[in-house]
Amino acid sequence: MSTPDTTLPDTGPSDTKAALSRRGLLGLAGAGVAGLALGGGAGALTTAAALSGASGSSNRYPFHGAHQAGIVTPSQDRLHFAAFDMSSTATRADLISLLSDWTAAAARLTQGSTIGDGAVDGELLAPPDDTGEALGLPPSGLTITFGFGPTLFRDAAGTDRFGIAARTPPLLRELPHFRGDLLVAAASGGDLCVQACADDPQVAVHAIRNLSRIAFGRAALRWSQLGFGRTSSTSTAQTTPRNLFGFKDGTANIKAEETAAVDDDVWVSASDGPAWLAGGSYLVARKIRMVIENWDHTQLGEQQRVIGRDKGEGAPLSGGTEFTEPDFHARRADGSTKIDAQSHVRLAHPDFNKGTRLLRRGYNFVDGNDELGRLNAGLFFISFQRSPEQFIRVQHNLADDAMNEYIKHVGSAIFAVPPGARAGQSIGATLFA
Amino acid sequence: MSTPDTTLPDTGPSDTKAALSRRGLLGLAGAGVAGLALGGGAGALTTAAALSGASGSSNRYPFHGAHQAGIVTPSQDRLHFAAFDMSSTATRADLISLLSDWTAAAARLTQGSTIGDGAVDGELLAPPDDTGEALGLPPSGLTITFGFGPTLFRDAAGTDRFGIAARTPPLLRELPHFRGDLLVAAASGGDLCVQACADDPQVAVHAIRNLSRIAFGRAALRWSQLGFGRTSSTSTAQTTPRNLFGFKDGTANIKAEETAAVDDDVWVSASDGPAWLAGGSYLVARKIRMVIENWDHTQLGEQQRVIGRDKGEGAPLSGGTEFTEPDFHARRADGSTKIDAQSHVRLAHPDFNKGTRLLRRGYNFVDGNDELGRLNAGLFFISFQRSPEQFIRVQHNLADDAMNEYIKHVGSAIFAVPPGARAGQSIGATLFA
Repeated sequence: MSTPDTTLPDTGPSDTKAALSRRGLLGLAGAGVAGLALGGGAGALTTAAALSGASGSSNRYPFHGAHQAGIVTPSQDRLHFAAFDMSSTATRADLISLLSDWTAAAARLTQGSTIGDGAVDGELLAPPDDTGEALGLPPSGLTITFGFGPTLFRDAAGTDRFGIAARTPPLLRELPHFRGDLLVAAASGGDLCVQACADDPQVAVHAIRNLSRIAFGRAALRWSQLGFGRTSSTSTAQTTPRNLFGFKDGTANIKAEETAAVDDDVWVSASDGPAWLAGGSYLVARKIRMVIENWDHTQLGEQQRVIGRDKGEGAPLSGGTEFTEPDFHARRADGSTKIDAQSHVRLAHPDFNKGTRLLRRGYNFVDGNDELGRLNAGLFFISFQRSPEQFIRVQHNLADDAMNEYIKHVGSAIFAVPPGARAGQSIGATLFA
Repeated sequence: MSTPDTTLPDTGPSDTKAALSRRGLLGLAGAGVAGLALGGGAGALTTAAALSGASGSSNRYPFHGAHQAGIVTPSQDRLHFAAFDMSSTATRADLISLLSDWTAAAARLTQGSTIGDGAVDGELLAPPDDTGEALGLPPSGLTITFGFGPTLFRDAAGTDRFGIAARTPPLLRELPHFRGDLLVAAASGGDLCVQACADDPQVAVHAIRNLSRIAFGRAALRWSQLGFGRTSSTSTAQTTPRNLFGFKDGTANIKAEETAAVDDDVWVSASDGPAWLAGGSYLVARKIRMVIENWDHTQLGEQQRVIGRDKGEGAPLSGGTEFTEPDFHARRADGSTKIDAQSHVRLAHPDFNKGTRLLRRGYNFVDGNDELGRLNAGLFFISFQRSPEQFIRVQHNLADDAMNEYIKHVGSAIFAVPPGARAGQSIGATLFA
């Protein structure tokens, strides 16, 4: 499990000039406030901290490592997820240089530094290296996680654009059609993905924006999604959050502290193949629109039957508290099972999926409203797993989920997530080695 | 200036049953974590707090008062703004009952309580009173601010649907067309507005969702907007945030501590008329799309010329630091003014607008991306002013703003914001008195 690094950022041996770090600027801003406070009464600085409205934090996670950050990292509360397509003229060299440039940028951004060391005080006759909107904000626990879609290896026409088709992970295929899928092409697929998670949405947006800018001419945004409330815990140190059905979500999620489960169910092992993906994972993203107006008019008993848990505590309907294991055999006096056979908790449970578990890392979203005045809201589901078969098995099993009356899947994508980069190495280095 | 209330919530004399407060549930959740921590090593609770990823806070602002909260309240960092239209069958009684129900709900939500006192542990055969996704979250500084659009008083056909046309504020008219307006009807106008601001977006979204649900059959969402980063400070205790151009925004904004300016420029006085609006204000909302890709390719010198300030510090180009007054007469050796005549800081400055000032309270937004891979991003501008003429004057003066090359106004709305409700009174009570 990654824990925040409390040492000074390692900006790498190439940074000989003084970097204008976001953290550094924050210090200056704080000093400015302190100056004002002297004129405004004692204690104003404390007040400033309490009232600042900023959600950023000093959490900081190492970028380099055996695995990419942003998977078993304790789930931050904000997301900007982006899928990119390579441009029609991009070459293998362009892809390699893009990954190299993205790696260098991500290593800086996650440590609270700006893109480039000139930042915004550089050459007046050139655009600034960094777009600037995160200046003054702390690192905010930013993680940036990269993935490769099936079309990167072989496009829809079957063309091996980048000379990597022979290295395609055999399991990296477009997901099958699932019952109830109503997928929108504009919210699905992609050659590459970037998942930016942070405690402050401005920091996550800044990362995607600058990576998109760096990609100019080589790759462009295909779709992107903001999420505002994590819907899973990935650490036992976190409380279980609630999704927009109002229920706790992710109670039984794989937690970083379950190291055996993480090894068994999340990381691709060397024996799984291909060798370049060892230490990586597979990411599945599903944009799930919730029909929340219908849900909100549904009686509490029916909501709880659909989920299989009670709404307040999150305990299984068989009894106990949130973390009590569901008893799918417990029956009422009339002989019916306390947990409905079509409930979500039952159909998603490992007992009914040959022991399958996923590491979920999804987010709530609201994208305004539709023309009928209904909030365009739901769950942006993200899961990480050692094999796509894990997601596929569970999702097929959810075909009879009572919850399906209240949701529709409108976006879908799958990516192979390469292992972490060692210092001096680029993300994806093992693929091109 | 409102300051957070540290006393127990006043849930009103009608709440004789024990209310299931969000704060109360948080306490339970915290206790659960502490229990886990005992098994996981000392200090885990501290870790839980540091890594929770939650941005919510215990800030809590009184709902009742002479003015509505959410105007001079220190700007929280997250927004969900919603415009509603009354339903075609709604009567005057429906409007009055809606405002009464909204007032009761807002008084509870802002104090960290749920809708209704049964919350999610109530009658199994009825839908829960509260949708539930904010259970366990602290009050998070939530403010809810209501406004009345011109069409509430007289609709597009000129009909006085609710018997209030005679009480229309003479200044409450649709805004004139401004040069460069490219307004989309689906993001403009509205009979009513609700501005929900909080430190946690899930708390703001929860408020709009539940108010929308309460409105069912009487009013429906016309459009809504999420914002994630405040772009103005409304208190001297706050640092100046940055907009998506990467520049500090709102340096010269009216601050709550400038009580004379607030009285002169923000609150409608009894002598302004109409009497029912005394203590209220006018809210202007403008959705401003930024063409950020063009901006990001613009050289730093040009960016700074457009804004009239430097990017790092935010100081006027005439010199000094962020809070130094711009000197529009300062010249370079070649005779040109250091601050360009078309710069935003000059054209928006009170010196060039007959002394006009606004209280700005806008937010950054990113609504995914367009089909060309450009982020659909910008500034959701909100200003409060004693008279709409203040906004109109400044906006007309910005017709020659050099910034116009990089922005387009796509949404627009204006609302009369009634005064605050006294305890036991509804928002808008003075209008119907």
